[in-house]
Amino acid sequence: MDEVVGRRGRSGGGAARRAERTAVHIETARFIERNIPNLEILNEEALAIIEHNAETVLQEIGVNFVENPAALELWRAAGADVQGERVRIPRGLARQLCATAPGRIVQHARNPERTVEIGGRSLVLAPVYGPPFVRDAKGGRRYATIEDFRNFVKLGYMSKWLHHSGGTVCEPTDVPVNKRHLDMLLAHMTLSDKPYMGSVTEPSRAADSVEMSKILFGDDFVDQNTVMTSLININSPMTFDSVMMGALEVYAKANQACIVSPFIVGGAMAPVTVAGTLTQVLAEVLAGVAYSQLVRKGAPVIFGAFVTSIDMNSGAPTFGTPEASQITYGAGQLARRLGLPYRSAGAFCGSKLPDAQAAYESANSLNMGLLSGVNFMLHACGWLEGGLVSSYEKFVMDADQLGILHRMAAGVAIDENAQGMDAIREVGPGGHYLGCAHTQANFKSAFWRTEVLDYKPFETWEEEGARDTVALAAARVEKMLADYVKPAIDPGTEEALKDYVARKKASMADSFL
Amino acid sequence: MDEVVGRRGRSGGGAARRAERTAVHIETARFIERNIPNLEILNEEALAIIEHNAETVLQEIGVNFVENPAALELWRAAGADVQGERVRIPRGLARQLCATAPGRIVQHARNPERTVEIGGRSLVLAPVYGPPFVRDAKGGRRYATIEDFRNFVKLGYMSKWLHHSGGTVCEPTDVPVNKRHLDMLLAHMTLSDKPYMGSVTEPSRAADSVEMSKILFGDDFVDQNTVMTSLININSPMTFDSVMMGALEVYAKANQACIVSPFIVGGAMAPVTVAGTLTQVLAEVLAGVAYSQLVRKGAPVIFGAFVTSIDMNSGAPTFGTPEASQITYGAGQLARRLGLPYRSAGAFCGSKLPDAQAAYESANSLNMGLLSGVNFMLHACGWLEGGLVSSYEKFVMDADQLGILHRMAAGVAIDENAQGMDAIREVGPGGHYLGCAHTQANFKSAFWRTEVLDYKPFETWEEEGARDTVALAAARVEKMLADYVKPAIDPGTEEALKDYVARKKASMADSFL
Repeated sequence: MDEVVGRRGRSGGGAARRAERTAVHIETARFIERNIPNLEILNEEALAIIEHNAETVLQEIGVNFVENPAALELWRAAGADVQGERVRIPRGLARQLCATAPGRIVQHARNPERTVEIGGRSLVLAPVYGPPFVRDAKGGRRYATIEDFRNFVKLGYMSKWLHHSGGTVCEPTDVPVNKRHLDMLLAHMTLSDKPYMGSVTEPSRAADSVEMSKILFGDDFVDQNTVMTSLININSPMTFDSVMMGALEVYAKANQACIVSPFIVGGAMAPVTVAGTLTQVLAEVLAGVAYSQLVRKGAPVIFGAFVTSIDMNSGAPTFGTPEASQITYGAGQLARRLGLPYRSAGAFCGSKLPDAQAAYESANSLNMGLLSGVNFMLHACGWLEGGLVSSYEKFVMDADQLGILHRMAAGVAIDENAQGMDAIREVGPGGHYLGCAHTQANFKSAFWRTEVLDYKPFETWEEEGARDTVALAAARVEKMLADYVKPAIDPGTEEALKDYVARKKASMADSFL
Repeated sequence: MDEVVGRRGRSGGGAARRAERTAVHIETARFIERNIPNLEILNEEALAIIEHNAETVLQEIGVNFVENPAALELWRAAGADVQGERVRIPRGLARQLCATAPGRIVQHARNPERTVEIGGRSLVLAPVYGPPFVRDAKGGRRYATIEDFRNFVKLGYMSKWLHHSGGTVCEPTDVPVNKRHLDMLLAHMTLSDKPYMGSVTEPSRAADSVEMSKILFGDDFVDQNTVMTSLININSPMTFDSVMMGALEVYAKANQACIVSPFIVGGAMAPVTVAGTLTQVLAEVLAGVAYSQLVRKGAPVIFGAFVTSIDMNSGAPTFGTPEASQITYGAGQLARRLGLPYRSAGAFCGSKLPDAQAAYESANSLNMGLLSGVNFMLHACGWLEGGLVSSYEKFVMDADQLGILHRMAAGVAIDENAQGMDAIREVGPGGHYLGCAHTQANFKSAFWRTEVLDYKPFETWEEEGARDTVALAAARVEKMLADYVKPAIDPGTEEALKDYVARKKASMADSFL
């Protein structure tokens, strides 16, 4: 899926020549379709107990829909027991309501080749979401700006194994809170042609996301298709706040996809046990997804689970741990039994630096993400320090590792060429395969290739400065940003988007709260 | 399984007081018994094709047993077609011979609590094997010495998640080649009480390993039990050299366990394809294990697979790659269908430093090791730079990660306490779990705890020197070596071992070849 991205939105001799000189092939892999099994760590008995207990939670304890009388009314009409803001849902009702949610979601990109499918055996990879800080090798740790935001969108656009441009790749803290979403959306829409996420920090900002998408895709197209996947966090335990639900309502009504995602640090927002946490996760997702279907039957929605363990000494969330993995595996099984697409995992780590700790934790999380059947993986690259920091170097380090997931997911070929019997016959005992015909015919595609890591002999590596992974990654970041060329966009569309942003910004006073 | 190791083999007031002061609890986890499924990436059709092709390789191409007339005679008598050193094995014969090898091996340690079982659902973890260099944060990269060797044995003894003391934890290059094995065995036998591996570099050194084991365990015990697991590499493709086979013959006759292990850099010693490599691996293991049964029916033997991919630019072996993982998963399936214990995986990496590259690669390899059903994992900690270097810091970093494998393998508890319904009832929507009764009762054992990584808040971490993982690990290495206390050993036994080593050394001139 090669594509030359050399055309630029505006003309001009110097700019055109520069574009010519720097034009690079931007290759993006198709989203993953797994050809290997998922790892199923819970047996039927355990799954049945957890499902039974989740229904007990919904029926006996219930969930809170806070400051949202309309939601309470919908629940009451659907047959729930509503007292104050507490909604108790009769056993089986939530699961029944979830049945109208689609099992597979097509999220369109403005470049049709970048359109993704979320559900079934698919895996769509999206970058880190939410950090207020950035870190790079040169500048260290600092508050993120809109310039950083644009840089991360550019890196995402140029990352071959990343299917999705994501959402809040970092918080542009230099832009007023009430106007940030406009600049962020504009960046995703114009600096990349991959699919993106909408704003959820206010219902009005979700509405802006829909409006800007209509400018980009056309009104009819957005009415009839999903062009955004947005992240709706549940305030665990079992609390659905009005801001997040307000955004969900906007998106569900517009037929845009939402991830309904418990946000759990185990031991703080859920029981310290894996089975207890899975019970709560399932109860919360059942309630949230059911609610989305009350808002609009058939609205596209994803079973989310953001779950970490906790360091009981410091109270800090911990990542890449076995308990978090077990929950991720188990939640995948529960999502598949519900027939819903599944969002979880990511290149999670607690480390403050993109060092060995960060990589152990991230690799543990990425591997479990692949094998637990995740369909939409947010935070697949760039996450550092428990999500407080978007790291430039870790972005490209993780993004490189995502290539491994693609190869693993493809499974093992077993056709005649793959069997390689000709090679074994040709070489025979004591020979070597480097020069044989089969090797010559296959070596270019035989092995996954890193674009960051170093495989050189020790002496060469030492002569080149004995660089560690961060130094190698920093060089790659620099080269990618220098090589970046914007994907082609209709100048009128871009003008209309900029105009929308300018008008919206002018209509409000700045707010930093 | 706590044990106070304060008693010392020799007495003396000052030594006893020092032992008293520095005595530490040495806790070693029991070997892993998996309670989760393996990941099976090959389907029945693929497995059948590979098994059929491996038999074709044995029958039509054959394998070489080099400079080993006795082996050729055994093969001829068993019904193979022997021409020169080439042994062609009729379809089905090798598999039939393999049937007498046991499916599960008990390897005894001198401390019975450290005895391991290799096979079935077990996973036994052993440290890095073979590097001629060591690296630490202070001294950099240098040739390994016997002092380094002893330090790694001490670290292994003190590592909770490591079940096995291993073999050549590094090459003591300051000791003559023909005497090294004596010092190495003495170190494993006296500085640790975990099970260990024997020498394979000469048949006579294998014999020394058996003799010294008889001193340690008693003659009768060694005759009747397995007390060593040793590494027999096949010279891939399809060549069984006389040195390795000589060692295997010594061990098989003494009823000591051998790992029969193809050593393959894919694309150089085997076809560039996964299925082709698996075919060759299976053919080689079938021939090697069958041969062990010709030497002694029922000899304990392990299906080994050391397989990496190759960087086609430099020819360097690469680690943590998807192709290596696929081969490891597939070989596990083939081993289980043969009913043999399986050795593969490890904390493999190609990186020159214990940095993020090393950790990504190692975590990828460790995770696939767990899920591919490996029973004996050599190189589970300390491996650096493609196996050229034993790294002090990486030893403790990897060894810490091995705790994660234990927790993952244990699976998910689903008893009433694990279900946590009381906690969910007690806390309810909007509450938090930190103080609830269920959390208080369970938090101490709820989560795996690192002994290396940093979970502290950013500010605390910065105040403490903003240490990266290598710095944290270096501090742990220093503390472990300072805290080390030798496990108790019968003074007469130790004297006899030292005497054997001294006599053997005196009987030969030094050789560094």
